[in-house]
Amino acid sequence: MKLSIPLKLSEISKILNKNFSGNDVEIKFLTGVEEASPGSLTFAKSNKFLKIAEKNGASAIIVEENMETTIPHIKSKNPQLDFIKLIKYFYPENHFKDLKGISKTAKISKNAIIGKNVYIGDYTIIMGNTQIGDNCKIFPHVVIYPNVKIGNNCVIHSFSTIRENSEIGNNVVIHNGSVIGGDGFGFVKDENGRYHKIPHVGKVIVKDNVEIQSNSCIDRAPYGATIIEEGCKIDNLVQIAHGCKIGKNCVFSSQTGIAGSTIVGENVICAGQVGIADHLKIGDNAVLFAKTGAALKVKPGEVICGYPPLKVETFRRNYVILKRLPEIFSEFKEIKKKLKEIEEKNE
Amino acid sequence: MKLSIPLKLSEISKILNKNFSGNDVEIKFLTGVEEASPGSLTFAKSNKFLKIAEKNGASAIIVEENMETTIPHIKSKNPQLDFIKLIKYFYPENHFKDLKGISKTAKISKNAIIGKNVYIGDYTIIMGNTQIGDNCKIFPHVVIYPNVKIGNNCVIHSFSTIRENSEIGNNVVIHNGSVIGGDGFGFVKDENGRYHKIPHVGKVIVKDNVEIQSNSCIDRAPYGATIIEEGCKIDNLVQIAHGCKIGKNCVFSSQTGIAGSTIVGENVICAGQVGIADHLKIGDNAVLFAKTGAALKVKPGEVICGYPPLKVETFRRNYVILKRLPEIFSEFKEIKKKLKEIEEKNE
Amino acid sequence: MKLSIPLKLSEISKILNKNFSGNDVEIKFLTGVEEASPGSLTFAKSNKFLKIAEKNGASAIIVEENMETTIPHIKSKNPQLDFIKLIKYFYPENHFKDLKGISKTAKISKNAIIGKNVYIGDYTIIMGNTQIGDNCKIFPHVVIYPNVKIGNNCVIHSFSTIRENSEIGNNVVIHNGSVIGGDGFGFVKDENGRYHKIPHVGKVIVKDNVEIQSNSCIDRAPYGATIIEEGCKIDNLVQIAHGCKIGKNCVFSSQTGIAGSTIVGENVICAGQVGIADHLKIGDNAVLFAKTGAALKVKPGEVICGYPPLKVETFRRNYVILKRLPEIFSEFKEIKKKLKEIEEKNE
Repeated sequence: MKLSIPLKLSEISKILNKNFSGNDVEIKFLTGVEEASPGSLTFAKSNKFLKIAEKNGASAIIVEENMETTIPHIKSKNPQLDFIKLIKYFYPENHFKDLKGISKTAKISKNAIIGKNVYIGDYTIIMGNTQIGDNCKIFPHVVIYPNVKIGNNCVIHSFSTIRENSEIGNNVVIHNGSVIGGDGFGFVKDENGRYHKIPHVGKVIVKDNVEIQSNSCIDRAPYGATIIEEGCKIDNLVQIAHGCKIGKNCVFSSQTGIAGSTIVGENVICAGQVGIADHLKIGDNAVLFAKTGAALKVKPGEVICGYPPLKVETFRRNYVILKRLPEIFSEFKEIKKKLKEIEEKNE
Repeated sequence: MKLSIPLKLSEISKILNKNFSGNDVEIKFLTGVEEASPGSLTFAKSNKFLKIAEKNGASAIIVEENMETTIPHIKSKNPQLDFIKLIKYFYPENHFKDLKGISKTAKISKNAIIGKNVYIGDYTIIMGNTQIGDNCKIFPHVVIYPNVKIGNNCVIHSFSTIRENSEIGNNVVIHNGSVIGGDGFGFVKDENGRYHKIPHVGKVIVKDNVEIQSNSCIDRAPYGATIIEEGCKIDNLVQIAHGCKIGKNCVFSSQTGIAGSTIVGENVICAGQVGIADHLKIGDNAVLFAKTGAALKVKPGEVICGYPPLKVETFRRNYVILKRLPEIFSEFKEIKKKLKEIEEKNE
Repeated sequence: MKLSIPLKLSEISKILNKNFSGNDVEIKFLTGVEEASPGSLTFAKSNKFLKIAEKNGASAIIVEENMETTIPHIKSKNPQLDFIKLIKYFYPENHFKDLKGISKTAKISKNAIIGKNVYIGDYTIIMGNTQIGDNCKIFPHVVIYPNVKIGNNCVIHSFSTIRENSEIGNNVVIHNGSVIGGDGFGFVKDENGRYHKIPHVGKVIVKDNVEIQSNSCIDRAPYGATIIEEGCKIDNLVQIAHGCKIGKNCVFSSQTGIAGSTIVGENVICAGQVGIADHLKIGDNAVLFAKTGAALKVKPGEVICGYPPLKVETFRRNYVILKRLPEIFSEFKEIKKKLKEIEEKNE
């Protein structure tokens, strides 16, 4: 990203209210380490990334306080957070700043209550008894079903659906095509083998500061609530089933799925394509590597990998073994044979 | 869920046309076992759930006929089905009962044929030569492409697309954002390494009483039809590829994917994130545990787990071994060494 | 698919500009091998499919030049490609040929630039500073955010979102409900354990001749671009994260997910439910079987399977072992015991 006019490193360090070391070079771009080139200011969280930046000829870099480099730099407790400050300073995301007012083509129930300073885009539909707080931006082509409550400062992007009874907190962002509060997937078989749908008269509660990316689904509970606690971040194409309780500040990467009634603690990280079975407990601070399947409860702080799930170290050591397993198995058969020979000799 | 006025257990048992045992307690809530508290009526399909209900102080419970409990109870052949009857009785899902008539903002082709008593919501689009049966509810923001047939009593939720040529039976429910009848994913490489799309002139046929949750995709066949037989239940984010035939009453949980031309029998259960390869046969009543990958045919009634797929018992016994594999492998190397020593001694 | 009037095989071979062998039979249908019956013309890429066609009584078949059959046939370098030519000849996909003009209900920014001969359907929204090339078909209910560029001859289906800054090449097809250019999933934790969103001021670039099926997500880069090179084919429910570079002519089947900043070479094939970790390199012509998880770089031409990923031959040989693992482990324990006995005897 090119700055509109080049700036000295000293001027940039002033924006961050921090000192800099080295020459007061001219900065033309803010870039990631991999796109860095002469003229770039970038950032590094580790020496691995620092080396990439140096190799690419970055003019300056924001580094952790304990890192050393010969190129001009700013030291920071959190280089990425400071870099984000600069991005926001130089490239304010203001595409949407003009989105104001309520479109005449939006269909809003007479029973809906809309807060102050709300934007509601073209063709958006807000059904009966729904409440929307102040300063929300509801993009074009959103459908909000009846009896929904939405807090203040929320952003809901096109083609998202908020189903009946959902409660959304403050500062929540929901991207395109996600479905919040859809019917849970529950059916009971009768004596003729026919399925009867379990009515889902519960709801979804999404607390403050949650962000939900695109095309994800969070189903409502049959009774009671599916709850997404404050600060959770949910990626694209994620499934959270009926009756789950997700603790604060969890991060679920794309295509992760959590089955019904599972209780996830705080600060749990699920990398991509993780699956968690129903009615489980996942402890605080657990980390599930990509593609992990959790079929049994996970202790607080546990770090697991694979399916069936293993400790990461075991997973890695097993991998070395699995790559050689056919060969090892041949040796095993050889051992069996030899042992038999020895036994026969000994008899 | 709170009852509007408390009722005696005797009054509730009359609704079910069943007897009760124990004190004629007052019921204030209908809840699941996990949310049960004094005042609750709940249900239990097994002693595991009965114990949770007892521990939580439920006032009364619906149990299987062979189960014993000291708390007031109603015996039932199918406790959950009776509980559902009560939920429907006390909390009729009538958010949508007022959805009537055809919105003036709906764009309906002159060549479309619309049945009696149909609701078509705002901004919904129905293209040429499409037929919609009686008593259907087509929510706002649905797009139905040309040459589609939809039976009676269907419900189609916002942002679902029904693509060209699809045939939907009676009593079918399609939730938000699903795509029925999209182009199958098929390309042929030419001698220059360029892909040419295979035209998909076939269709999707969805039979009666099927329910499809949100953001799922069922692709149409290149020629002939992708078929979803009567009574199938398909969860969120499921993929069913071109030319599959899915037998009656199958249940596919979230994020399951079935590749092209596979034939699935009746009553097959796929838990979450299951994958089935193309051109396979999956026998009636097979059960595929979560995250199973089926790359070979599955026999009727088989129960498999994992990838590569194993019998469940093998999967579980292997899990115990895999957790100890590095240690076992060390022992194995030790054995090799000792055996060599013995052999050398014996020579 | 029934031909409107039956044709002789000689007439069909003229359409392909090829010779035929055997009787000049009458062709009534074009079908796949599995739906073939007397009257059918079908095609076979291998003897396996030829046998199915013969068994089903196909009247004629297009086969590879080196294949032999007693039924009337046309030989071809690429039987499927020739079959596609016939399908296109007899069943031109012309549902959409009448889609012309710009709907009055479409909301198009005054700052948007629209090419010649463009169709824009009902209720579609095109925000500020967006450019759309000639001959594009933008279906009803598409939302295009600001600052988007779309080339010529593109087709965008209902409920797809093209987010801010995206650049789409020529001849690109995007099916229903896909989200191109959504915010990348990136957050930085501060010292209080709270997440801050990384602003994504980059873009997505989709090059010429790419096809993206339904409900897939391609996220934009934080800075720079996520790039999908020419000719890629992306199935339903696929996730491509921020900053990925995908080489020419890659094919990603359904529910595949590629994590951030990964660089994929040309002609890479990912079967269904594949996962690729972040910051990896996947070499040209690599093949990842269904459900493969790639956590380390993959060499050009490598063919891998499973998670952890193995060479296909190893995967298959391991499968045989894993099915017997509990039994093998019993033998192993027996060997340990016997060896101990021998050692004790020898002492």
